Amino acid sequence: MSLISVGTMAFDALETPFGKVDRIIGGSATYVAWAASNFFTPIRQVSIIGGDFPQEEIKSLEARGVDFDGVELVKDGKSFFWSGRYHLDMNTRDTLVTDLNVLAQFDPKLPDSYQDCEYLMLGNLAPAVQLSVINQLKNRPKLIVMDTMNFWMASAMDDLRKVLKMVDVLMVNDSEARELSGEHSLVKAALKIQEMGPKYIIIKKGEHGALLFQGRRVFFAPALPLEDVFDPTGAGDTFAGGFIGHIASTGNISFENMKKAIIVGSALASFCVEKFGPKRLQSLTKEEIEERIEVFTELVKF
Amino acid sequence: MSLISVGTMAFDALETPFGKVDRIIGGSATYVAWAASNFFTPIRQVSIIGGDFPQEEIKSLEARGVDFDGVELVKDGKSFFWSGRYHLDMNTRDTLVTDLNVLAQFDPKLPDSYQDCEYLMLGNLAPAVQLSVINQLKNRPKLIVMDTMNFWMASAMDDLRKVLKMVDVLMVNDSEARELSGEHSLVKAALKIQEMGPKYIIIKKGEHGALLFQGRRVFFAPALPLEDVFDPTGAGDTFAGGFIGHIASTGNISFENMKKAIIVGSALASFCVEKFGPKRLQSLTKEEIEERIEVFTELVKF
Repeated sequence: MSLISVGTMAFDALETPFGKVDRIIGGSATYVAWAASNFFTPIRQVSIIGGDFPQEEIKSLEARGVDFDGVELVKDGKSFFWSGRYHLDMNTRDTLVTDLNVLAQFDPKLPDSYQDCEYLMLGNLAPAVQLSVINQLKNRPKLIVMDTMNFWMASAMDDLRKVLKMVDVLMVNDSEARELSGEHSLVKAALKIQEMGPKYIIIKKGEHGALLFQGRRVFFAPALPLEDVFDPTGAGDTFAGGFIGHIASTGNISFENMKKAIIVGSALASFCVEKFGPKRLQSLTKEEIEERIEVFTELVKF
Repeated sequence: MSLISVGTMAFDALETPFGKVDRIIGGSATYVAWAASNFFTPIRQVSIIGGDFPQEEIKSLEARGVDFDGVELVKDGKSFFWSGRYHLDMNTRDTLVTDLNVLAQFDPKLPDSYQDCEYLMLGNLAPAVQLSVINQLKNRPKLIVMDTMNFWMASAMDDLRKVLKMVDVLMVNDSEARELSGEHSLVKAALKIQEMGPKYIIIKKGEHGALLFQGRRVFFAPALPLEDVFDPTGAGDTFAGGFIGHIASTGNISFENMKKAIIVGSALASFCVEKFGPKRLQSLTKEEIEERIEVFTELVKF
């Protein structure tokens, strides 16, 4: 029994109204691993890194129960690099640099030891890569969750449609849900996307919380009103990691348990934005997580 | 013991992506009265209307327990008229026409029978008018709630500051809270606005719900995800009416009870947007309201 997490492990350079960092650890699978490993191990990581990816980071993650057998190391290559600048509202950002580097040649080969996969988290990546991982699994996982973004809707819609048909849960933000469905109403958007494959649609709305749809059932998860959002990078991946980590640790894929998983993901994401990169996640304790989940519980109670 | 509601009673012409109406009943105090009278009467209305305001509407409201002694009728005048066109997202709109008409001469004189006021709802109006009503009351009400808008922040900030010092609860939308405080973070905005007077700040976020702040305490109320928003006109006033109606009917002004009042207001607002103008509110039953409140309860339960 295991959880596979597929995604990027990378470097980011970030500029927010609060400061600037030149080259810190990033990547969707990095955030998923830091978040999910609070709840469940082993996490069987699938990614690609260059020789520049720090050994120290690998060791820290291994110590938390992250398995690197499925992470391809290209010794003379460079890790994926992204650089962006956030606007004052922190909801919009400009991409300054995207250097694919080793990501351009990413064609994951799942190790045999990864075949016992029960939970599959497909982080934001080229749909063709997401598809390849699903197809390499001899037994269908109990739950496949995928994240994606508008970039793939514009550049790889045919592949994206194929992946959508094979997954259980789609996570997108509100503008992506609107783009994918052609519907402004999120209720209508969720119904339309369900026709494309996934039974569950999670729409992330940043500071406005998140919505979970299944058929006509809906759950509204709050976001914690924060005094400052220091750096939103990785908040969505952290949310995904908290979600899948909770699901895997409980072994329960019901709608009811997904609600709790979304609260867990939201709590983790609320920590993530407190510092640059995954730094805050790295120092997180079980007690802090439990306290934060309690805050979320109180937030909506009436 | 009574509830005073101060605001406009008017005509609106509306264009939404779903249709167009030429001249229907509108005005902040109209929506407040329709909403609040589900929970509490008498509602002592303070407004000004022209000879063109339909007798039928007055009779319908009187039948619900709305007192018109404080509504000035200018027989040879015309009622306030507003015309607007909503964009596809329904969150933004263009004002096409604003004819103040009798509103330009609005200088309310409170009837003696209004002096027993326990709950005062100051609908969106010139701050000088709001101030005049407060000053005419011999005894301070138990709770004063005010609504306002960005227009007054730009044109009558000095008066607005005076009213803010005298009220308990301020209701504004998110962009207005940001404008009034100069803070982007709503947490910081609410703290800053509390320094201006009101102990409680309610920030309305439309389809994203509402936030209630008192000191560092916060409550996050969901909005019902809707398939279609037919016409958002009056949703904020309906929310205010449901809020003050619940508070007045329970006689409880605690933070805990304000949470419930916000849910009641949100439930009423979710009906309001289903049809043009106050039409849907006029046909609403107690059972429908209770069912809708139950939907809100389920929406956030995990």
